[in-house]
Amino acid sequence: MIYLDNAASTQIHDDVLESMLPYLKEQYGNASSIHRYGRLAHKAIEKARKQIAQLINAEPSEILITSGGTESNNTVLRGISRSGSSDKIITSLIEHDAILEPCKNLSKSGLIIDYLPVDNFGMVDPQELQNRLSDNTCLVSIMFGNNEVGAIQKISEIAKICNERKIPFHTDAVQAVGKIPIDVKELGIDLLSISSHKLNGPKGIGALYIKNGIEIDPVILGGGQENGLRSGTENVANIVGFGKACEIAKNHLDENMAYVSKLRDLLVDKVLHEIPEVTLNGDPKSRLPNNAHFTFLGVNGEDLIIKLDEYGIAASTGSACSVNTQKASHVLQAMGFSHEQITGSLRLTMGVFNTAEEIEQTVVHLKKIVEELRSFSPFKEKYSFNSKN
Amino acid sequence: MIYLDNAASTQIHDDVLESMLPYLKEQYGNASSIHRYGRLAHKAIEKARKQIAQLINAEPSEILITSGGTESNNTVLRGISRSGSSDKIITSLIEHDAILEPCKNLSKSGLIIDYLPVDNFGMVDPQELQNRLSDNTCLVSIMFGNNEVGAIQKISEIAKICNERKIPFHTDAVQAVGKIPIDVKELGIDLLSISSHKLNGPKGIGALYIKNGIEIDPVILGGGQENGLRSGTENVANIVGFGKACEIAKNHLDENMAYVSKLRDLLVDKVLHEIPEVTLNGDPKSRLPNNAHFTFLGVNGEDLIIKLDEYGIAASTGSACSVNTQKASHVLQAMGFSHEQITGSLRLTMGVFNTAEEIEQTVVHLKKIVEELRSFSPFKEKYSFNSKN
Repeated sequence: MIYLDNAASTQIHDDVLESMLPYLKEQYGNASSIHRYGRLAHKAIEKARKQIAQLINAEPSEILITSGGTESNNTVLRGISRSGSSDKIITSLIEHDAILEPCKNLSKSGLIIDYLPVDNFGMVDPQELQNRLSDNTCLVSIMFGNNEVGAIQKISEIAKICNERKIPFHTDAVQAVGKIPIDVKELGIDLLSISSHKLNGPKGIGALYIKNGIEIDPVILGGGQENGLRSGTENVANIVGFGKACEIAKNHLDENMAYVSKLRDLLVDKVLHEIPEVTLNGDPKSRLPNNAHFTFLGVNGEDLIIKLDEYGIAASTGSACSVNTQKASHVLQAMGFSHEQITGSLRLTMGVFNTAEEIEQTVVHLKKIVEELRSFSPFKEKYSFNSKN
Repeated sequence: MIYLDNAASTQIHDDVLESMLPYLKEQYGNASSIHRYGRLAHKAIEKARKQIAQLINAEPSEILITSGGTESNNTVLRGISRSGSSDKIITSLIEHDAILEPCKNLSKSGLIIDYLPVDNFGMVDPQELQNRLSDNTCLVSIMFGNNEVGAIQKISEIAKICNERKIPFHTDAVQAVGKIPIDVKELGIDLLSISSHKLNGPKGIGALYIKNGIEIDPVILGGGQENGLRSGTENVANIVGFGKACEIAKNHLDENMAYVSKLRDLLVDKVLHEIPEVTLNGDPKSRLPNNAHFTFLGVNGEDLIIKLDEYGIAASTGSACSVNTQKASHVLQAMGFSHEQITGSLRLTMGVFNTAEEIEQTVVHLKKIVEELRSFSPFKEKYSFNSKN
């Protein structure tokens, strides 16, 4: 099997699983208990919190552990203080559903949600944000790296604009953390969402960075864990694994970035040269190192995925989360893509466990599959589908 | 080490861990992905959903998977529909904080929360509930088995009263599921919260049984997983482990109940006979099989726990969740206990991995420790602290 859907989820690193096992076996204490079992669990969590913090240059006290990136996003949107007349949230049209759906819900209760457009590359214009900021804006939430087309936003510029107006700035960095260097202090970020399973950690665990001084109300209430900000018995094993994954990501960031982007460049280069009528979508430069997103004109992306799957290659049309709903990508729509361009899209996302050989094999199969599918295509006459070489 | 804090958390069963490992290793797909990795993850989740459902005689479609019991409780309280003038929730004074804290929050937004009292044994009077039900009641939430004193409420009677008035009835059954037989259909329960780590499954995962026809709004929005009722990438490994734990609990329910209650009876019998001035708290008969809760007069429960810990015995004063806040037990207060009675309380909760030998050893140490602590007690003159034998 060749797994090229690392934006959907990643393989757990061996050392991560190793670190989790004691907490799935003998160290089963509740971290709130005062006996030895409890203290060991508590200590393990605090170590992990430090590892998570260090990956983004935050303080451990600024890390709220959640059940994942989606909960982190929901916590920000629901929990951000809306004092007085501050009733506007500014976000973008290409956010993940974990931002868009809570926003839709908040708009029902009277909040104004202002969606920034993007250009053909999926980039938000910071100037446009500047123009739309007003005194009643209580939050700006702009994604760090897009989950479909990989576009990395001008986060530093955006943060600066928000900082100047003293408006809290949140970024959904689920796809970016552990893939590219992120320093929340240097960038001026107030709130940032992380997901463990996107960076070779376990699923069901994530974090929200909350800059000291920013106030957030909890979404889940109860026993008062996480300083009262997130109740529920802590998922010790997954937290420990998440921490370890962050530590590994930090220690190997440069080499992993170089390795993965080399694989990605190899793939992009081969696909663009060996298959006709194909485009690379998203910003070619300001882009997550592991993301390749193509449109193969005249082909249905879903058919492509099913065919690739038959050859043992795991790929995606876009967000895994929206697969079941079968709706057209709102990201590509926002980028001005035609229905045909959206239909023909394929996302291939690399990870540290992929090899150049896998990429070569993938291109061989992909070329064959695209050719085959196009031979039945109703658009056959419209394009020159003849193989390039 | 002797672990007698099974109400706080339990050891993961070997077979449960075994079932999880493939999903922590090679089966790392996102359950929403349409390729083979995704399909395998999805299938594993649906198998687990069936196992969870079977433990309580529900339909798989009635099981919403959450990040734990606390989230399940929050989902009910926040998500239950409040059509028209239905603005009252009836609950009890002895609920877990995962019910009480969301209720407190809801009362701020105008909801009326009516707290039923309990008797000295911690029992709610169904007649009192009957009296307080009104047309504006949108939900009744009464815990199945209490986490501190183990009292099992008259759930069937309570459910019947609610059913007759067509008012949704929820029960926080986190301590009861897997310990005693629970048939949601026979009992007439509409909503029921479960936690995996209380029944030898992994932490960070739980479920909410939602009877077909009962409507609940989601708390966490996004990719639309769990039929739109709980968004976020599914925690496949933990869900699989949770399912396996439910299957094991179901298959061994009678023998485990008999085994654990025998250990508990041995403990209670020895403690009451060998240590002077001690009472067993909670209902002596309608009681969780694994729960023993005592008051040792003239002793501070926290000191007891610390001393027991020195002898390698893990115990608790009550809810693990409220340990950090050091507040006096609201459960014992509701039961009419004096400050002195509350201070001297100790909870020992057994599990399937405990042995009679451990219980014998515990009593030997406990006797010694209580004697030692009482020798410094300011209440020395008040009671006859002389050892019974």
